[in-house]
Amino acid sequence: MTPAINQRVLLASRPDGLPRPDNFRIVEEPCPVPAEGQLLLEILYLSLDPYMRGRMDDAKSYAEPIALGAVMEGGTVARVLVSRHPDYAVGDIVLSHSGWQRYALSDGAGLHKLDPAAAAPSTALGVLGMPGFTAWAGLLQIGRPRPGETVVVAAASGAVGSAVGQIACIQGARAVGIAGGPDKCAFVRDELGFDAVVDHRAPDFAQQLASACPQGIDVYFENVGGKVWDAVFPLLNDFARVPVCGLIAQYNALPQAGPGTDRLALLMRDVLKKSLNIRGFIQREFADLRPAFLQQAQEWVRDGRLRYREDIVEGLEQAPAAFIDLLQGRNFGKLVIEVAPL
Amino acid sequence: MTPAINQRVLLASRPDGLPRPDNFRIVEEPCPVPAEGQLLLEILYLSLDPYMRGRMDDAKSYAEPIALGAVMEGGTVARVLVSRHPDYAVGDIVLSHSGWQRYALSDGAGLHKLDPAAAAPSTALGVLGMPGFTAWAGLLQIGRPRPGETVVVAAASGAVGSAVGQIACIQGARAVGIAGGPDKCAFVRDELGFDAVVDHRAPDFAQQLASACPQGIDVYFENVGGKVWDAVFPLLNDFARVPVCGLIAQYNALPQAGPGTDRLALLMRDVLKKSLNIRGFIQREFADLRPAFLQQAQEWVRDGRLRYREDIVEGLEQAPAAFIDLLQGRNFGKLVIEVAPL
Repeated sequence: MTPAINQRVLLASRPDGLPRPDNFRIVEEPCPVPAEGQLLLEILYLSLDPYMRGRMDDAKSYAEPIALGAVMEGGTVARVLVSRHPDYAVGDIVLSHSGWQRYALSDGAGLHKLDPAAAAPSTALGVLGMPGFTAWAGLLQIGRPRPGETVVVAAASGAVGSAVGQIACIQGARAVGIAGGPDKCAFVRDELGFDAVVDHRAPDFAQQLASACPQGIDVYFENVGGKVWDAVFPLLNDFARVPVCGLIAQYNALPQAGPGTDRLALLMRDVLKKSLNIRGFIQREFADLRPAFLQQAQEWVRDGRLRYREDIVEGLEQAPAAFIDLLQGRNFGKLVIEVAPL
Repeated sequence: MTPAINQRVLLASRPDGLPRPDNFRIVEEPCPVPAEGQLLLEILYLSLDPYMRGRMDDAKSYAEPIALGAVMEGGTVARVLVSRHPDYAVGDIVLSHSGWQRYALSDGAGLHKLDPAAAAPSTALGVLGMPGFTAWAGLLQIGRPRPGETVVVAAASGAVGSAVGQIACIQGARAVGIAGGPDKCAFVRDELGFDAVVDHRAPDFAQQLASACPQGIDVYFENVGGKVWDAVFPLLNDFARVPVCGLIAQYNALPQAGPGTDRLALLMRDVLKKSLNIRGFIQREFADLRPAFLQQAQEWVRDGRLRYREDIVEGLEQAPAAFIDLLQGRNFGKLVIEVAPL
């Protein structure tokens, strides 16, 4: 019953800029055997998310860096393969944080049982999981869009952005998405029902964004940074709210400014003049709201008001390349590695 | 009874950088005569505040610019000299927004009667007025210091900063003030009772600030910007709150950055990594809390927990020079022009 060999993806070296395949090392090790009180989990799905780039650095952040030689961390959906734990039976499907590997031990801490009949288990990593909750909490607790206000979000076909825009529409706000390329833009407009969408690859992107926001921007849900932020910033209205949950455009390298006006001072000037509110957050801060989110989001998914798209890549050994693609916006929808068939 | 001549200070030209005396023009005009329903006010005190620098520019902000040739605006305490209004009697002392002049008409809109027996009328322009309310609202509604947390404020001997630090102490937080020169620093520490004070003129200012904040900074009440913000920024703790009510260091000119790292991107990185909350505000936003503030602040002033210092300059014709000094930190306490004796 217990497999002999475990496959794991380790952090081999810290990236300098965009990660390269050799920053990862795929190893085979003996599969661990559960002791009394433990479970052996078979990973089915591994979530790949931009925040993982930060963990690969050796810098203080809201989470500890991944140690060199340690397994890459990440959220997972797994099946209980062996149980020596009273609360779990063989075959149970659980949400865990087991990282980039095929098998993992657990003592039950932090596990959540999933009901495959209620929702496809992979959604626990996306629309009904951490990305969906990030969107929900950041938009409703910090952004607080009012009916008729304009909400802008980038990476609008992605796990977080797609939920932000749709939840904004549910609140009666006007959702403007930013995405890269005609396919993603069409999806955001036609499938997700955003009020407008702008392609950030267009040479006149900033102008197009301004045209798409004739009343200015009341909420900018920041998950990318870089040139999108540069285009959004002048359009912010008085009392605009900017929840910041990610800055994927500057994870690999901070943009270098030329000589000239200090943009930090410009930012602060507008913070003052426009009474802006810029607030970084991580979804953990709102953990007590998670049950309320789950109930609401499940309902919205069921009645078709909250749609999602998954980009499922088969095989754990594809994880490094898929992650590198993710950081360059090459995925289309929530990126999930299918480690083993459901 | 009615004086023949009114003296007024007009905006003669828009300043380029620090205002110069010739940006103002002092004129004498016939004193206006109140019609039925109007009052003639004799200005006793004129408040000079940093925000007025912004109004001298021709740029969009939360308030309209002052028109060229118009009287400089500002909060005032005045005596009713002639009343053709049923609610006011000759001799009443009122808070008004009559600007830089000796006499002004009013139809009663926006006037508040003051009780000279309850508090010195000049305090309605300082500790019990707009600056005190700015401190109270920004600190308690946005900063929300918890007991034991570290609150930092600059211009700590000034109208807003002195109140911020003392209210922080009343909340059980640790107040660290920043001021310029030994006299102001001694006043902040010994008279106002801040827990620590740092002189921003010290060559090792940033290091001294770090030493004064061994547990980092939880609330930075931003009213100056510039090099103080540069020193504060790396010391901000996770979940730090930064209410922004002023940036006096950059009102005259935005600091110019050399080539190199874009500090805007650095700021946003820390906003994300530390879940910072940066929020510009003006006290008007919290107008419905003004009665609660007044009640609490009057009590604190009476029992000596909220002290204040006024820097009273005699003569309306001194206002331009005193205002230029204010922008360079040359005042010591709340700057008020005594236009006429009480």
